[in-house]
Amino acid sequence: MAVLAAQHDDFPRWYQDVLTKAKLAENGPARGTIVIRPNGYAVWERMQAEIDARIKAAGAVNAYFPLLIPMSFFEREAEHVEGFSPELAVVTHGGGKELSEPLAIRPTSETVIGEYMAKWIDSYRDLPLLLNQWANAVRWEMRPRIFLRTTEFLWQEGHTAHATQLQAREYARRILREVYEDFMRNVLAIPVIVGRKTVRERFAGAANTMTCEGIMRDGKALQMGTSHELGQRFSRAFSITYTTADGTVENCWTTSWGSSTRMLGGLIMCHGDDHGLVLPPAVAPVQAVVVVVKESDGAVARTASVLVDELVAAGIRTRLDDNASQGFGWRATEWDLQGVPIRIEIGPRDVADNAATLYRRDTREKSTVALDRVADEVRRLTEDIQAQLLAAATARRDDVIAECATLEDVREAGQTGVARVPWELVGEAGEVELAASGLTVRCLQHSNGSLPESDDDAGVLAYIARAY
Amino acid sequence: MAVLAAQHDDFPRWYQDVLTKAKLAENGPARGTIVIRPNGYAVWERMQAEIDARIKAAGAVNAYFPLLIPMSFFEREAEHVEGFSPELAVVTHGGGKELSEPLAIRPTSETVIGEYMAKWIDSYRDLPLLLNQWANAVRWEMRPRIFLRTTEFLWQEGHTAHATQLQAREYARRILREVYEDFMRNVLAIPVIVGRKTVRERFAGAANTMTCEGIMRDGKALQMGTSHELGQRFSRAFSITYTTADGTVENCWTTSWGSSTRMLGGLIMCHGDDHGLVLPPAVAPVQAVVVVVKESDGAVARTASVLVDELVAAGIRTRLDDNASQGFGWRATEWDLQGVPIRIEIGPRDVADNAATLYRRDTREKSTVALDRVADEVRRLTEDIQAQLLAAATARRDDVIAECATLEDVREAGQTGVARVPWELVGEAGEVELAASGLTVRCLQHSNGSLPESDDDAGVLAYIARAY
Repeated sequence: MAVLAAQHDDFPRWYQDVLTKAKLAENGPARGTIVIRPNGYAVWERMQAEIDARIKAAGAVNAYFPLLIPMSFFEREAEHVEGFSPELAVVTHGGGKELSEPLAIRPTSETVIGEYMAKWIDSYRDLPLLLNQWANAVRWEMRPRIFLRTTEFLWQEGHTAHATQLQAREYARRILREVYEDFMRNVLAIPVIVGRKTVRERFAGAANTMTCEGIMRDGKALQMGTSHELGQRFSRAFSITYTTADGTVENCWTTSWGSSTRMLGGLIMCHGDDHGLVLPPAVAPVQAVVVVVKESDGAVARTASVLVDELVAAGIRTRLDDNASQGFGWRATEWDLQGVPIRIEIGPRDVADNAATLYRRDTREKSTVALDRVADEVRRLTEDIQAQLLAAATARRDDVIAECATLEDVREAGQTGVARVPWELVGEAGEVELAASGLTVRCLQHSNGSLPESDDDAGVLAYIARAY
Repeated sequence: MAVLAAQHDDFPRWYQDVLTKAKLAENGPARGTIVIRPNGYAVWERMQAEIDARIKAAGAVNAYFPLLIPMSFFEREAEHVEGFSPELAVVTHGGGKELSEPLAIRPTSETVIGEYMAKWIDSYRDLPLLLNQWANAVRWEMRPRIFLRTTEFLWQEGHTAHATQLQAREYARRILREVYEDFMRNVLAIPVIVGRKTVRERFAGAANTMTCEGIMRDGKALQMGTSHELGQRFSRAFSITYTTADGTVENCWTTSWGSSTRMLGGLIMCHGDDHGLVLPPAVAPVQAVVVVVKESDGAVARTASVLVDELVAAGIRTRLDDNASQGFGWRATEWDLQGVPIRIEIGPRDVADNAATLYRRDTREKSTVALDRVADEVRRLTEDIQAQLLAAATARRDDVIAECATLEDVREAGQTGVARVPWELVGEAGEVELAASGLTVRCLQHSNGSLPESDDDAGVLAYIARAY
């Protein structure tokens, strides 16, 4: 009778079942592409709105750059072309003719945006230049997995240019903390581990990559957003220069940073349970559904409809389910599956009692509340559920983190969770060794949670895990 | 000294000058692609928000379908493939290998969405299925022009499936009127002519195409949004069927409809003048700018800053220009160029008088207003400017429409404006003849403005013009 595979039996099948049964997404016709169905896209729209507001608060403005990039652009930065060449989708024909220069579909836009930054930046007065774009990107995936690794994905990619290394560094960190970490903790309720990538895990062409790593319910890590200091590599490759107040010409310092539809996968796998999706109220397209359990001459639907109006007036995103011709059990299972945080159930008896049953998706607890107190109680519940989801995810995350002192410990801990170990005990050689066991260094962090200035900082800890 | 070419001297150069000088957009590196700069993109974001709200009010939900479509999908509908084949961009290589089946970059998504509609629709209970997506699309353009004809463009494309022809027809018309026409008239202040396309001008694969045509300041027409009845062509090609209440299986009736970044070109060319862009307040990212004309020991900036807060509190999108180290004349020219609807100018004398100068971009008139009345006056002005822009554009449109009775009349009127002529005097043969003079039938309409049921309706009028 179970709608979904149980998480502890088969987590990958559970994930696939949730995607299908909650109608979130499915495979597209071309390998690795996906279709994001309305239920999934509505969550993405709320993510976009929250991230976009934070990006604008950080002073960046939106723009749009072309999908198609001349292949020659990639060749200007050696590490970048080496990293991305194997993943490119290439357009060779357009308008019925073979093109004189093939065009790549953007896997990321550092190159084409670099070309325009060089045109737009003249003097120090034009700096910082803080750009962002919402777009699709394509990277050929050998082992595609819906939301987690897809040939085409949707994302925002920010690209900035600064006068000094320090300003670039501070801005890349500001985005990491004030946009990504803040959004993931306070909206997605995912207690991400924020740290620095090792050289091996850096973005192709970056001088420093910083990351937010989410820990999923199966103990695996998911990289959910990254912010890169690009140093002067792209500014040299694309001649992004500025004239100082003294009249000398200098190369800019650039950054880039991105977050994508991959976060949808993280949201599902961090909070979901055996009954389906569990959405934090802050990101739920529908925060509360008022369900007519059973009808008796229209009185229940009338009461339900008044409640919906009250909830909407109270600022709660509310939907009415008055489809009483379908069994209540079937509908309750559906709303569970879709992860709606709060259900308000009303039947003839409730109307007679001037009450309703409130159900919270996270704990699946029910309580009875007087009708005139429902709106207040729902508002209180949205806050409580949001806080509880973060607390529960934090407890699960901390549960799977094991303090390790040897590579052997790390290898064992990494089978089911996350190893935390002094980076000096691992080093680049240990990192290569662990890769053979399917383990990667997710990030480096000081023990107080702050970001290392370099991999060699004293006392730096490494978080090591299997990863999506 | 003029910043821009004068419209009456060289309209195309004026258009290009506005794009460049107001920093709206420029050419991308690959032929026909464009870069939408922050000033242009901010207007597009407001357009998207307004259109999206109307689409949702019409009951459609957003989703996302793949960019890359197998070539074989196009071949299933004969007219569609014939129409789009010459414009396709084709990916032949991915991940370093030649693909076994080439992939087209979507020029439009009827085919791939049809494939999924067929999977998702089972019974009459699943209808209507009302989908929309915000996406980019690529059509190889031989004569690209920024915003008007670009190889890549941004748009929304709606796709719906219905149980009956009548329901599909009504929905296609609802979108045309309640989404497109309403948005274009009431937000963009463009008095579009709404009508039916002739067979020659139909979307490839449509049974009926309906359009909103804007008339630009040079007398040319711009197709700004279209809504198509697709009949059962795509439902037959992709097996989009449903089971009726009686248990029989029927083909669905589908529609599609789209509006794109092309509207940005329409907005510029419908309202712009020799001083630059003129933005209707409803779509202006900045509705009012408070300008410190000259400073005197900080008093002006303090007053300006209080005004900005008041305006923001009054719901006006406001920016502060306190850059008094630059000449006022230069800054005023810049704000004119960018089309900000209202400018509030304050200098030392104004502060002493407790007053400010209000400037409206559309008529370029100035008035003096007491400081404590500025917010009220700005609010009134935003409404007045919005209304006046629509009235002025309507007057210009009506001025260039000439009633014609012969093809010779049409040819002459079409040189500088729009010919309105009984369709029966033109017919398909006349349409071909006029095409040789660069004139096209923009749409057919009844004399009372209503939409013809067919090209053969009695008394139908044709609007004929040069077009972008």
